[in-house]
Amino acid sequence: MLTENIIKTLQKIVGSENVDCKKSSLLVYSYDATPQFQSPPDAIVSPRNTKEVSEIIILCNKHHIPIVPRGSGTNLSAGTTPLEGGIVLLFKHMDQILEIDEENLTITTQPGIITKDLIEFVESKGLFYPPDPSSMKISQIGGNINENSGGLRGLKYGVTRDYVLGLEIVLPNGDIIRTGGKLAKDVAGYDLTRLFVGSEGTLGIITEATLKLIPKPETKKTMLALYQDLDAAARSVSAIIANRIIPATLEFLDQPTLQVVEDFAQIGLPTEVKAVLLIEQDGSPAIVEKDMNKIADICRENNAVEVSIAKTYEEAEALTTARRAALSALARLKPTTILEDATVPRSEIANMVKAIEEIAQKHHVKICTFGHAGDGNLHPTCLTDIRNEEEIERVEKAFEEIFHKAIELGGTITGEHGVGAMKSAYLHLKVGSAGVEAMKQIKHSLDPNNIMNPGKIFAKSERKRVVVAR
Amino acid sequence: MLTENIIKTLQKIVGSENVDCKKSSLLVYSYDATPQFQSPPDAIVSPRNTKEVSEIIILCNKHHIPIVPRGSGTNLSAGTTPLEGGIVLLFKHMDQILEIDEENLTITTQPGIITKDLIEFVESKGLFYPPDPSSMKISQIGGNINENSGGLRGLKYGVTRDYVLGLEIVLPNGDIIRTGGKLAKDVAGYDLTRLFVGSEGTLGIITEATLKLIPKPETKKTMLALYQDLDAAARSVSAIIANRIIPATLEFLDQPTLQVVEDFAQIGLPTEVKAVLLIEQDGSPAIVEKDMNKIADICRENNAVEVSIAKTYEEAEALTTARRAALSALARLKPTTILEDATVPRSEIANMVKAIEEIAQKHHVKICTFGHAGDGNLHPTCLTDIRNEEEIERVEKAFEEIFHKAIELGGTITGEHGVGAMKSAYLHLKVGSAGVEAMKQIKHSLDPNNIMNPGKIFAKSERKRVVVAR
Repeated sequence: MLTENIIKTLQKIVGSENVDCKKSSLLVYSYDATPQFQSPPDAIVSPRNTKEVSEIIILCNKHHIPIVPRGSGTNLSAGTTPLEGGIVLLFKHMDQILEIDEENLTITTQPGIITKDLIEFVESKGLFYPPDPSSMKISQIGGNINENSGGLRGLKYGVTRDYVLGLEIVLPNGDIIRTGGKLAKDVAGYDLTRLFVGSEGTLGIITEATLKLIPKPETKKTMLALYQDLDAAARSVSAIIANRIIPATLEFLDQPTLQVVEDFAQIGLPTEVKAVLLIEQDGSPAIVEKDMNKIADICRENNAVEVSIAKTYEEAEALTTARRAALSALARLKPTTILEDATVPRSEIANMVKAIEEIAQKHHVKICTFGHAGDGNLHPTCLTDIRNEEEIERVEKAFEEIFHKAIELGGTITGEHGVGAMKSAYLHLKVGSAGVEAMKQIKHSLDPNNIMNPGKIFAKSERKRVVVAR
Repeated sequence: MLTENIIKTLQKIVGSENVDCKKSSLLVYSYDATPQFQSPPDAIVSPRNTKEVSEIIILCNKHHIPIVPRGSGTNLSAGTTPLEGGIVLLFKHMDQILEIDEENLTITTQPGIITKDLIEFVESKGLFYPPDPSSMKISQIGGNINENSGGLRGLKYGVTRDYVLGLEIVLPNGDIIRTGGKLAKDVAGYDLTRLFVGSEGTLGIITEATLKLIPKPETKKTMLALYQDLDAAARSVSAIIANRIIPATLEFLDQPTLQVVEDFAQIGLPTEVKAVLLIEQDGSPAIVEKDMNKIADICRENNAVEVSIAKTYEEAEALTTARRAALSALARLKPTTILEDATVPRSEIANMVKAIEEIAQKHHVKICTFGHAGDGNLHPTCLTDIRNEEEIERVEKAFEEIFHKAIELGGTITGEHGVGAMKSAYLHLKVGSAGVEAMKQIKHSLDPNNIMNPGKIFAKSERKRVVVAR
């Protein structure tokens, strides 16, 4: 609990209108997009500038008060649940694009801007910011950076990390540092920029970012390849890459996912097939034409029952929008939707899809699978009901087996959603206990009082994903 | 000094033939490619595998013996000078490619392989490993990773960091950890991979790396644009990018550099012009054709006096090989060659080139400038004589002013050569004293006894670049 005095000091720093302790607000910020985790903060604070952020962190560091920086809370790893109370930090006053530099191809922005707003602004200048997490309509750039968000264009263009050139960071001791810059090359000391990207708000607070832009691809084409055999779809993915073609997007949806997405989006998706690949290529018209023809051939050679290229921009947009809505669509079916993102080398996609099916059957749980096949980044999604304790127990077991399988295949426990509170108990599976220890040492060196988003990344025990109550 | 006992233990670990304490060897490994720094190690040790590396580091950590991991010593920041003695670690027994995975487009290698050998092997499979430091004929991949090496293709393809997917690392406590993997996406905890890339051997020892490959571009064209005006050349660089074209290579050479390179390479380079841009584009033939025509137009519009495209592969290779030889060519002129790599946003290239000229004139020192103009990464190179103390004093002053100018223009003190011992006194100019402090905390958390490459990155004092004697 925050003392009266601390709340008064916070009010003095940010203005009383920017400190919210209403019970209803604390409830709203007690959870994020991740099911099964809930715990209220003691206050919600909205600083107006970096100086205020620094004053807040100094106050909290002195009194050992947890700080949870939060964008739109769309993360899927309980990364912004205030598990140990304290302050939720919002960036609603720090949501401005500060500069677009068309000569150096950079954009400098505050953390609170909505990802899609930034992308649209950039595209209006003929430039391109590729990272496109499915939540981009509501997610904030600051959240994307803290989570190192991926998206549908990761295969060809990489993830958020690959576009962060520089950061302004407030460290737990209140120091304000600037890393990187508008620079294609910079090796002045350790790469703090990339250490902070994906650090899930556990090392400090990002208050500004300079992002790399690239020229906007001239054109884009979108294709659906339909399969009556999951394995054939997976083999197509490998064959496309083995043929030295890197599509912009290479998504996989299984039949159960297709059915709910079509039910939700009503755009005429095929629901009678076992799996679909959604494939996009972008670039100059000649290259796109050539690649798409070659990809169509490869899909057919690998037993696609049908291959169709979207005829209009609108038709193509409808397809990718429907894919992005997969989670929302699935979430309508059952009270609780648990979505995972175990990731494997792309050559193992077929094995992973098969393993997920077998594990689901073994534990009698319903798992739909879709995801970024080209990245090996699948999202097996379990439709369940949190009130059914016995079933949740089986879901836990199934996901644990999925994690182990991913690791066995050379993969990771999380491709783009982060560790958060949800997967902290599994981190050692990927990086080993020595790896966890090294990460903890780094965390402790920058945040000795553990005020930054405590309870995330590092497990207190081998606790599994269960409802957390304070 | 190492005790008899420690040397015996080292011999037991790696075999006595792999512990070298001969005076002549200690002299050889007392310096690297950086002038003005020399200090002998106490032994040169060549482990045969990761387990031996771990045993060595445990021994050294116990007895506080410095370890300097060294590739071919081609770095230009005194990054591998054993300033505090101890052990130089060589990777001559750990120089094998372990696997090329054509389905996942990765190569897994030991650190000791020569960069160019790896590149040629990869290209023989129709794949491409873009980072191409000028030293690639003799540099080792392990050194490239530790220095986050850049190269001529950085503008379009990025630097070493962008191609390191996973590492095996031996930490100072002897723990062997594995980061990343054959994964396009992985957010399991902090990004240790990228923390270690560019850490200059100060955090641990890299014993294996998995690198990302991409399809080899179908074709490539090479162009020279000649200028009688440095500013026109710099404006062309900005105009090319502003026209949304990202060439594979965009190099700048001034007249003094051109003259010595031509004298060295004898390939008919124009020596009567003030500056040259060497431009390459790669990709599909249609795109390359289109881009090169557009680039030629842009150069002419910006007052290029001549634009010529290499007619054959051999002619093109001769041009880039000559460019890569710039440092060797310059080094023939005077006893001492000091090469810098202050880097600025590319929009500031013209200002930076002008500033370098003015600073050289002011201090009466001879500075030739060449470098990766597209990256804003210039290599002003001073031809001097280390025995002329008065002149060296002026050289120091000139470079200090160049650093300050680069920072003033939004740049950095080092784009691709690293901080090493040479620039440690200037690191705070780029990252601030709070930034240096944060980096020191990370260093201390992983290497509390400061055994890993001590004296690098972090300055003991504001000591300038002078000859170091023990």
